[in-house]
Amino acid sequence: MSRERIIIVGGDAAGMSAAGQIRNLQPDAEIIVYERSGYTSYAACGIPYYVAGLVEPVTRLVVRTPEEFRKKQDIEVQVRHEVLSLDLSKGRVLVRDLESGREFEDPFGRLLLATGASPFLPPVEGADGEGIFTLNTLETGIAARNYVDTVKPERVVVIGGGYIGLEMAEAFGCVRDMKVTLIDKAPQVMSTFDPDMAELIASAIRGIGTELRLGEGLVGFDLTDGRVSAVRTDFGTIPTDMVIMGLGVRPNSELAGEAGMTLSVRNSIAADTSMATSHPAVWAAGDCASTFHLLDGEPFWVALGTVANKMGRIAGISMGGGQAELRGVLGTAMSKHCGYEVARTGFNEKEAVARGLKYETSMIKTKTRAGYYPGAEDMHVKLLGEEGTGRLLGGQIVGGQGSAKRVDIIATALSAGMTARELIDLDLGYAPPFSMPWDPVQIAGRVLLKKVGGE
Amino acid sequence: MSRERIIIVGGDAAGMSAAGQIRNLQPDAEIIVYERSGYTSYAACGIPYYVAGLVEPVTRLVVRTPEEFRKKQDIEVQVRHEVLSLDLSKGRVLVRDLESGREFEDPFGRLLLATGASPFLPPVEGADGEGIFTLNTLETGIAARNYVDTVKPERVVVIGGGYIGLEMAEAFGCVRDMKVTLIDKAPQVMSTFDPDMAELIASAIRGIGTELRLGEGLVGFDLTDGRVSAVRTDFGTIPTDMVIMGLGVRPNSELAGEAGMTLSVRNSIAADTSMATSHPAVWAAGDCASTFHLLDGEPFWVALGTVANKMGRIAGISMGGGQAELRGVLGTAMSKHCGYEVARTGFNEKEAVARGLKYETSMIKTKTRAGYYPGAEDMHVKLLGEEGTGRLLGGQIVGGQGSAKRVDIIATALSAGMTARELIDLDLGYAPPFSMPWDPVQIAGRVLLKKVGGE
Repeated sequence: MSRERIIIVGGDAAGMSAAGQIRNLQPDAEIIVYERSGYTSYAACGIPYYVAGLVEPVTRLVVRTPEEFRKKQDIEVQVRHEVLSLDLSKGRVLVRDLESGREFEDPFGRLLLATGASPFLPPVEGADGEGIFTLNTLETGIAARNYVDTVKPERVVVIGGGYIGLEMAEAFGCVRDMKVTLIDKAPQVMSTFDPDMAELIASAIRGIGTELRLGEGLVGFDLTDGRVSAVRTDFGTIPTDMVIMGLGVRPNSELAGEAGMTLSVRNSIAADTSMATSHPAVWAAGDCASTFHLLDGEPFWVALGTVANKMGRIAGISMGGGQAELRGVLGTAMSKHCGYEVARTGFNEKEAVARGLKYETSMIKTKTRAGYYPGAEDMHVKLLGEEGTGRLLGGQIVGGQGSAKRVDIIATALSAGMTARELIDLDLGYAPPFSMPWDPVQIAGRVLLKKVGGE
Repeated sequence: MSRERIIIVGGDAAGMSAAGQIRNLQPDAEIIVYERSGYTSYAACGIPYYVAGLVEPVTRLVVRTPEEFRKKQDIEVQVRHEVLSLDLSKGRVLVRDLESGREFEDPFGRLLLATGASPFLPPVEGADGEGIFTLNTLETGIAARNYVDTVKPERVVVIGGGYIGLEMAEAFGCVRDMKVTLIDKAPQVMSTFDPDMAELIASAIRGIGTELRLGEGLVGFDLTDGRVSAVRTDFGTIPTDMVIMGLGVRPNSELAGEAGMTLSVRNSIAADTSMATSHPAVWAAGDCASTFHLLDGEPFWVALGTVANKMGRIAGISMGGGQAELRGVLGTAMSKHCGYEVARTGFNEKEAVARGLKYETSMIKTKTRAGYYPGAEDMHVKLLGEEGTGRLLGGQIVGGQGSAKRVDIIATALSAGMTARELIDLDLGYAPPFSMPWDPVQIAGRVLLKKVGGE
């Protein structure tokens, strides 16, 4: 066989980004993608908005279809095909065609695991009831939307106050005007934010009419005729017509683990900066794989579309024979909750403490625009900086329109290893409709500079 | 005299920022500020919005009054006092009280020149007519607003397609629904943008109903009963009820020049990174002073509120005995034109050519949000990068809501000396309402990377 045969397991962001890069670098390689679901290369982050009816039709979430990959890039995508196991010594995968049930072995020269992550589902009573949804695949999104359209639920309970939970609470509350209850076992929403910033987010959530119940854990579900009718918690019963599970995701690393490959943090597939794994013929990318934290170089796992796309690109270049590496990530993430925007990057206080860092924080409240310009809204910025050196460690933002994307200033400064002093020296953009002469991030930087020493 | 006497000439952004810093560091110093106008510490960038009626009342533009400076910080501000000359050998300034006409000499231990910049006014016929306004001081803004309220002009001609010109065209066209004609002698608007990006801005300006006449120079004004009735250009006559002059500003460096101090680019007062001048007892800050371009370290002059505030802070810390320096700036600037946002930072092509740099450019068109998310608008990004090294040199943005502030990513990357490759590795924020998984700036970075070599 003269053409090298490359198999990619998983056809979403990471897998298809990699496939495209490989094709660019190796015009002759045979590229086969096995995707368990019926869709490929779709915008998973758009699912909440589709479920809420803000995006129509569902095909708008599909960036590129299998047919387009085949025609435009000669990439063979087999949807509804699940890879059941890897035989790394023989260089084969065992595949099941989910339509026909047929199983077959398929040989590869090199393999990319881009198997994604799966939502955590607690083993509670009634969890298999109708009207209870996770939203990790386009199919689950379509099912949830169909349920919304046919059952017309008026009440929904969202379980878990992370990104998906907040976005679904927004979608149902602000867009569909449903009665939304959000419960979380933790004492705060958004575990990647510090408690003080999470408190601001909680106020925003409550402010738009969502009933927020913190420190309240899921016990089980009451079903009526097979359909969910209430959520039972350790504090009581919440009648509902629909439930969204947003308890976080876990890397799909079973195939790799069973094949004896090395796993890393949170059981993600251990990958180096070029996305190579412990096996010389196997690469891994996306939500199933580990990366590194840019601030300390330690292995790090995070399930984010940005990171999955970057990993896929790097894996594809590496597999295609090019040179590329992803030095690491910062866990930069953002979300919108009706009129509120939230964003974070780098270490939060808990992470800084866990790493034994001596740090100072600054937290300021200012405006998104010049105070006199119509539409100026409150904006809170929190920064962490290392004691003594003044090196920036992380930042969090909660505020009105135009707040969240400012986290990019902090993320870029973190990547460059900047100090608080260097942050305030930055020549950032200003005009009254967008900012004040000192950007809010720099105002927080000035307060931080005084604490870490200086000015 | 046990208290050192510090005189500051000019009581706007730079002067008052400096005064505050000096007060922090030297609780005992005597600080006197002479300000020619009747106001201090006002938001000059807000004047167009006040004239248009978007901001009410005018006092909202005043950050802090002379009385507040006196009470809160023991800073003595004398408004309507003009400094006429400097006697550096004797350490005295000659001051005129503009109310009484009285002139007096005042001694200083150290002096800060924060005299700002003045609009360029071509010596054409009729330029002193009623209804012709520059908008460089709060007084001129108040006069223009009074004219708008009393004369109720229906047509306005804006002369000069820079930031002030565009903002006034927006204010009159979009906010007040007046008939706006914008003329500029140059073949493009916004001279700090490359022609290709300026063309996009021009399309946006025309798209909202402004009549844009490029390559058309001002010849003079027709007056009727002393009031402007038409603008004469080298192509014809434009009847109008009002004129806004936006032909740029020039540093107010006459006092310094006449006192024998060294001047720098564009006749700005030569200042080092601590804002010290050629005279050991004199500092300079704000629109009257020079700084450096961060990318090549050469003297650079730009009149921007951000830079004036930074310079004022640095001058104040230096004069107060602290250590601080402003390494340089990037000319980062932005503006809003109804639904359009524009921003730029670093070198444009003309600047790169003038410096003998070998560079490549990338220019991409994408969306401000995920393409499927409601409200996604077009966004254009142009990047310049050095051939061979891939070092970023500059960026320009034109697009819908959420476009302009992304220039901060580029500005921060430029400050850190990042390459195109480092730009695309940045872990920036993403959620469908704000961005795509690859930020538009990174999409432009990927195209640039291919051109400068890589991927």
